[in-house]
Amino acid sequence: MSDALSYIRDGAAIYKRSFAIIRAEANLARFTPEQEKIAVRMIHACGMVELADDIDFSPSFVSDAKAALRKGAPILCDANMVAHGVTRARLPANNPVVCTLADPNVAALAAELGTTRSAAAMELWRDRLDGAVIAIGNAPTSLFRLLEMLGEGVARPAAIIGMPVGFVGAAESKEALAADGRIPFAIVKGRKGGSAMAAAAINALASDAE
Amino acid sequence: MSDALSYIRDGAAIYKRSFAIIRAEANLARFTPEQEKIAVRMIHACGMVELADDIDFSPSFVSDAKAALRKGAPILCDANMVAHGVTRARLPANNPVVCTLADPNVAALAAELGTTRSAAAMELWRDRLDGAVIAIGNAPTSLFRLLEMLGEGVARPAAIIGMPVGFVGAAESKEALAADGRIPFAIVKGRKGGSAMAAAAINALASDAE
Repeated sequence: MSDALSYIRDGAAIYKRSFAIIRAEANLARFTPEQEKIAVRMIHACGMVELADDIDFSPSFVSDAKAALRKGAPILCDANMVAHGVTRARLPANNPVVCTLADPNVAALAAELGTTRSAAAMELWRDRLDGAVIAIGNAPTSLFRLLEMLGEGVARPAAIIGMPVGFVGAAESKEALAADGRIPFAIVKGRKGGSAMAAAAINALASDAE
Repeated sequence: MSDALSYIRDGAAIYKRSFAIIRAEANLARFTPEQEKIAVRMIHACGMVELADDIDFSPSFVSDAKAALRKGAPILCDANMVAHGVTRARLPANNPVVCTLADPNVAALAAELGTTRSAAAMELWRDRLDGAVIAIGNAPTSLFRLLEMLGEGVARPAAIIGMPVGFVGAAESKEALAADGRIPFAIVKGRKGGSAMAAAAINALASDAE
C-alpha cells in the first residue's frame, strides 16, 4: 500500500511535469507560440493530447483577448462551472467574472422567449458586451443566441471562447461562430468542449505563468 | 444566416435527443440498467461516446451511493467546479454540497504537511466522511490522500466517485482506488476525468429523471 501511494505532492512540480508530457506528446506544430500556451492548458484540463487537433483560433484571437483582459474587460461565462474555473489570482486587472444564468429573472425570460435558460441568460449580457471576453463552455444555445444578438447589432465583445459541449447543436454552434467571422474566436470543433476547457483558455490568456 | 441559426430551443427536447444519440452510439452493453444511466449522463457531460469504455463501477456502487443520498449524505467535492456542477434541485434530501479547498486554513496546512492544497483540503473532511458520497473530479492528490486517510482508519464514506483528470497521478490514483476495494467506487480509467463528469455522476445518482 505504501508503494502504491508514493505520489508527487509538490503542486508546482506536478504542473511542470504535466506540461512537459503534453508538449512531448501533443501535435502542437501548427500553433503560434502564443496559441500553443492556450492549447497546452486546455489539454491539461481534459487529459487528452488529441484535443490539439480540434482546437482552432482566429488569427488575432490571442492578442485581442489578452489586450482586453489587461484593460480590465469583464469575463462573461455561460455557466457557473466556467466562472468557478477561472483562477482569480491570474487575472491581470481584477477583471469581473460574470455568469447571469442564476439570475432570478432568467427562468421567466426563457419562458417568455420560448428558449432555454442558457439562451435567455444572454439577454442580461447586453450592457456588458462591449469589449468583453466571452467564455462559453456549456450550452450551444448560449452561443447561438449570442450570434443572433451580434446580428441584431449589439456592442461587440473583444473575443469569444466558443466551447459548448455535447450532442445537439454544439458542433453546429461552433461552426456558426467560425463562419460568422466578426469576432476573434477560439473553438473546439465537434462535440467536445466544456467548462474546464473554457476556463483553462481564460486562465492561459490571463497570465503567461505556467 | 437565418438558416445557420435555426436550432432547437426547447431544453427538454435537447436533453431527450442528446440521450437518444448517446444510447444509439455508445457501447453500453456491459452496464446494468442502473449503471447505464450514470454512464449516459457522464457521456452527455463530455460529448464523447467512447468514454463508455473507460468507466468502471464496483458492483454495489450505484445502490450504495443512491441509498446514502436518500438518507441525506453530504456530497464532498475536491473542487469548486464539481460542487457548482451539482444540480441542487435533483438532490433527494437537500444534501449538503461541501468543498473545503477555499477554506482559509488550507494553504498553511498544505505548507505544513508538504503537500498540495487539494490534498490538504481532505484533512477538513474528517468529521464529515462517515457515510458521505465523495466526488473527486480534479486532483489526483486529493484521491491519493483520501486513500491514505482510509488506511489510517478514518470513518468510511458510502461511495467514492474517483474521476481526477490529467497527466501526473490521475491514472495511478484511480487504479489505487479500485485496488483498495474498501469503498464502493465509480472511476474513469486513465487520464480522462474532470469536474463535469464527477458532477454528472452525482446528478444521475440523485434522481432517476432524465
